[in-house]
Amino acid sequence: MTAPSETIAAPSIQSVRDAAKRLSGVARVTPLLEAPLLNRIAGRRVLVKAECLQITGSFKFRGAWNSVSALDEATRARGVLAYSSGNHAQGVAAAAAMHGVPSVIIMPADAPALKKENTRRYGAEVIEYDRIGGESREDLGRTLTEARGLHLIKPYDDPFVISGQGVTGMEIAAQTTEAGVAGSNVLVCCGGGGLTSGVALALEADTSDWRVRPVEPAGFDDWRRSLALGEIDPNPAPSGSICDAILTPQPGEITWPIGRRLFAPGLAVSDRDARRAMAAAFRHLKIVLEPGGAVALAAALFQPEAHQGDAIVVVASGGNVDEAAFAEWTAEWRDPGGWTADSAPI
Amino acid sequence: MTAPSETIAAPSIQSVRDAAKRLSGVARVTPLLEAPLLNRIAGRRVLVKAECLQITGSFKFRGAWNSVSALDEATRARGVLAYSSGNHAQGVAAAAAMHGVPSVIIMPADAPALKKENTRRYGAEVIEYDRIGGESREDLGRTLTEARGLHLIKPYDDPFVISGQGVTGMEIAAQTTEAGVAGSNVLVCCGGGGLTSGVALALEADTSDWRVRPVEPAGFDDWRRSLALGEIDPNPAPSGSICDAILTPQPGEITWPIGRRLFAPGLAVSDRDARRAMAAAFRHLKIVLEPGGAVALAAALFQPEAHQGDAIVVVASGGNVDEAAFAEWTAEWRDPGGWTADSAPI
Repeated sequence: MTAPSETIAAPSIQSVRDAAKRLSGVARVTPLLEAPLLNRIAGRRVLVKAECLQITGSFKFRGAWNSVSALDEATRARGVLAYSSGNHAQGVAAAAAMHGVPSVIIMPADAPALKKENTRRYGAEVIEYDRIGGESREDLGRTLTEARGLHLIKPYDDPFVISGQGVTGMEIAAQTTEAGVAGSNVLVCCGGGGLTSGVALALEADTSDWRVRPVEPAGFDDWRRSLALGEIDPNPAPSGSICDAILTPQPGEITWPIGRRLFAPGLAVSDRDARRAMAAAFRHLKIVLEPGGAVALAAALFQPEAHQGDAIVVVASGGNVDEAAFAEWTAEWRDPGGWTADSAPI
Repeated sequence: MTAPSETIAAPSIQSVRDAAKRLSGVARVTPLLEAPLLNRIAGRRVLVKAECLQITGSFKFRGAWNSVSALDEATRARGVLAYSSGNHAQGVAAAAAMHGVPSVIIMPADAPALKKENTRRYGAEVIEYDRIGGESREDLGRTLTEARGLHLIKPYDDPFVISGQGVTGMEIAAQTTEAGVAGSNVLVCCGGGGLTSGVALALEADTSDWRVRPVEPAGFDDWRRSLALGEIDPNPAPSGSICDAILTPQPGEITWPIGRRLFAPGLAVSDRDARRAMAAAFRHLKIVLEPGGAVALAAALFQPEAHQGDAIVVVASGGNVDEAAFAEWTAEWRDPGGWTADSAPI
C-alpha cells in the first residue's frame, strides 16, 4: 500500500487548517440554517449545519477531497479504493473523478439503491459484497489494493479524512459567531467518529466554551457507552437500525483517543425519532436528511432536557436516502392537521 | 389605508440596495447550490439559488420584511394584512411577528394545508375565503383594512415588496462571480412578477451580460404571452395547475413595465416536468421544492435547447409543499433502477 505525499502523525488543528486550504473553492461552505418553528419545538435556538448540501450530499466529500489532494501524483494516478455503505463511497468517487483518477468502491449489496447508483454515476467501479453473509470487506480491499496498486482511503481512521471533516468545525465557529452564538453544545451524528473528532479538534482551538457530543442510534451507541466506561465497548450487533450511514462496530483507533479526550457525553436516539427529525427537517428547513444524518437533530428536538443553554448546534451530516424509503419513513408525520398528543407537532 | 413612512415612486436599484440594508442580518443569504449529477442532466452548469432555504421557506420573507420594516411605527403597531395562497402569507406573518405586531392573512380555503398551518403558527390570524366560489379577496381585504386600520402588503404590486425580493438578485451577482460565472441567463419562477422584476432590477445595475427570463406553468404563462405580444394578455383560467404559488391572473401594474423593459422571453413548463424537477432537487441537491418553486429548475433541466452558454442560474423560489402531496407527485421518479427511456435519469 502506498502513502500520501506528506504524512500526518495525528490529526491536529494544524492538519485541519491545511485541509481547509485544500478544500477552499472546491467543497461548499454549507449554510447554518435556523427556522423559527423548529426553535419552538426544541425550546431553544437550533442552528443546523446542513452538510446534506455538501457536494455528493454529505460531509464525506470533505475528507475524501483532502485525502485525494494530498496524494503524490504517481500514487493518485493509479487510483483510490474505499469501502463504504454509501456516503464515503460517493465522496471518494466524486473526489477521484474531479482529479481525473479512477476509483474502486466496495459496497455492501444491501446498501441503499440511491447510494450505489450515484457512486456509479460519479464514475466509480462499484464492487458489491455480502455484508450479511459475513464476507470481509477488508480482505476484499487488501486483495484489490495489492493487485492494482490502489490507495486505500479509510472511512474514518485516516488523519487526512478526519482533518477534512474537521473543516466543518472551523465553519461552525465562524458561522455561530456571525449568528450571535459564541460557544455552544454541538451535536454530531457519529459512526466511526471521523466527523465528530475532526469537529472537536477544530473547536478545541477556539477559545469559546464548546462541548462536542456524539449522537448515535439506540442499540448502536458504542461511543456513548465507551465514553461512559472509559474504554472501548463495541456494539453487540452489526446491523438493525435504519441509520445505515453510522452503523460502525466501535470507535476507531485514531478517533478514539481524540474522542476520549475531547467529547462530552454521547446521546442515543430511536429510529422513530430519527424519522421524526427527517420529517421536521423536510417541513421546517426544506432539506432532505437520511436517518443517520438526522439523529443529531432528533436529539436536539426530542431530548430537550438533555441540553443546557439558549442555543444548540446540530450537524445534519447527510441526505442520501432513497425516495421511496423517505416517503415511507416519514408518512407518520405528514398531516399537519392530524397530530395526536404523542406525535406532538413537528 | 395608511402609507409607509417613506414612499418609493417606483422600485429601482437604489430601493433594492436600501432593502438589502434592512434585510442584512435578518433574512438569510441563501446558498447558490450546484451538483455534478444535476449538471450532467442539463448539459451545462446549473447554479441553483435555493430560496426554499429562506426563513419561512420562500423568498417572500424578503419583501415582507422590507415592507414591515419601512412602515412608520404607529402604522406598524396597528398591524398588517395580506392575501396570499401561502408563501407571502408566511413571509408577512413571520415578519410581523418578528416586529411584535399583529397580522391578518386572507387565504383561499383550498390553499395547501401546510401553508395555512404554518401561517397560523407564525402567529397570524388566518381568514379563509372561497376562491372557487368567486368570493373576492380584495373586497374582504378592503373591509378589514378599513375596519381595523391595518396596512395592506400586496403580494407583488408594491415597490417595497419588489425591492425586497430584488436582494436575491444582488446575492446572485456576488455568488456567481465567486463561482466563476460572470453574467448568465437567470431563470426565475414567476407569478405576478415581484421576484422576477426585483431580480432584473438588481442585475440591470451589474455591468455583466445578464438575461432574466420568467418561467411559468403551461397554461398560466401570461408573462410569456404578454412579453411576446408587447401587451398584457391575461390567463384564461384562475386555477388548474399544481403550481399554486405562481397562479396569478396577469402581470402586475408595477411589475409589467419593469418586465417589459428588462425581461428576456418567458418559458412555460408542464406540471409533469415541475414534479420531475422536484424529484431531481430532492435527489441531487437535497432540498425540498414546491411545484411553483421548481418550474425554473425544470426549464433548465428539461428544455436544454432553450438556453445558450455553459452555465445557467435558476432561482428555486420556495419549498412549502404538503408532505403527502410531495410523496404523491414525485412517486413516478423514485426508483433509481427503474427508469424508462421517456423518464430519462433525473
